[in-house]
Amino acid sequence: MPDSSTTVAVLRDAMGRFVAERQWEPFHSPKNLVMGLSVEVAELMEHFLWMDNEASRQVVGDPARLGEVADEMADVACYLLALSNTLGIDLSEAILSKLAKTALKYPVEQYRGRYQ
Amino acid sequence: MPDSSTTVAVLRDAMGRFVAERQWEPFHSPKNLVMGLSVEVAELMEHFLWMDNEASRQVVGDPARLGEVADEMADVACYLLALSNTLGIDLSEAILSKLAKTALKYPVEQYRGRYQ
Amino acid sequence: MPDSSTTVAVLRDAMGRFVAERQWEPFHSPKNLVMGLSVEVAELMEHFLWMDNEASRQVVGDPARLGEVADEMADVACYLLALSNTLGIDLSEAILSKLAKTALKYPVEQYRGRYQ
Amino acid sequence: MPDSSTTVAVLRDAMGRFVAERQWEPFHSPKNLVMGLSVEVAELMEHFLWMDNEASRQVVGDPARLGEVADEMADVACYLLALSNTLGIDLSEAILSKLAKTALKYPVEQYRGRYQ
Repeated sequence: MPDSSTTVAVLRDAMGRFVAERQWEPFHSPKNLVMGLSVEVAELMEHFLWMDNEASRQVVGDPARLGEVADEMADVACYLLALSNTLGIDLSEAILSKLAKTALKYPVEQYRGRYQ
Repeated sequence: MPDSSTTVAVLRDAMGRFVAERQWEPFHSPKNLVMGLSVEVAELMEHFLWMDNEASRQVVGDPARLGEVADEMADVACYLLALSNTLGIDLSEAILSKLAKTALKYPVEQYRGRYQ
Repeated sequence: MPDSSTTVAVLRDAMGRFVAERQWEPFHSPKNLVMGLSVEVAELMEHFLWMDNEASRQVVGDPARLGEVADEMADVACYLLALSNTLGIDLSEAILSKLAKTALKYPVEQYRGRYQ
Repeated sequence: MPDSSTTVAVLRDAMGRFVAERQWEPFHSPKNLVMGLSVEVAELMEHFLWMDNEASRQVVGDPARLGEVADEMADVACYLLALSNTLGIDLSEAILSKLAKTALKYPVEQYRGRYQ
């Protein structure tokens, strides 16, 4: 089920079922989930720790490494989906609304090719 | 555009356009994006820092705080979407494939109500 | 060599020798070291992930777990010491100067027993 | 009071007094302190986010930026000192003992100039 046809709700439901089947809701406080999110981001980060930016781009051409990275990204996503479920936050709305705000903060003309 | 009708591709495209309009691709190495992801998770974490797990659940009933949390979750998601774009990883496939693997690692019968 | 008799310089020197013997200086850019620091903090965090604040205090009475936690804290400290060495920052001065600034920001009378 | 003459105990005591004066011990569970540590590392990380490894080394020549970095490193150190106080862990012993273990894991001959 690729990104082009999968809604965020489908992914949230898949995560929700995974948690419900194991009755893990009592562990899934927002505080715990954010800590878990942080731990998973660190595992993702480890893949890019001792390399230059340029080398980190070359991971695209290394299927084995790319698969490991995809797995860690999935873990990060799962904690974010679980947090959406716990807090009842619509993630798509949050993303598109934040992108609109950030677009006002960084006008295209002023920030083209530069961050600050 | 709520989660029930928004595909991951729509969100990836929105993020991709945001980055392309500002010509920020040169900054978006995997190494940089993962660092950015980590910084955003910390900003999200700050909301739950000095409270107990139980208090962190009460955030659901505080609309102003919940809005701030949703904004930080959106930032986390945006970096993850940008990383998917840079690496060409299908996030939905990665999530569903990882959930299937994790389900095997944590059989329902053995892990119901417990993590370890 | 306990805290009461060990200077920060002794610890920085120990870390410096460890790095120099392996000729790891080329890897020890500030950017890489801060990423490593973040990864180690996450490994420390994992020990306290699925528990309440109160339970996290009970770790004091669990020698095996406490030893693991001490090991992770040491890893965090080592990256911080390495960063001090790379940047030539006197850590003791930085700490005491920052504590003085923070004391002004949080006057005792106003913040006794409360954070905000 | 520079690193060459400041013991870790002096720094732990300074942090301990800071916390005790404000009666913040109830907030200083290991779980909360590790989260705070993570947040401070992210603020440190932000200084090195959008640059290459080489550029991150140039921070040494920028006194204003270096001062900000030193401040963030101090915050990281303070949380680590607070955690040592809460858990009753001797940080110097932990560091030197861990360095000895890590030295065995990475023999000089085998790891000179390489990480893996």
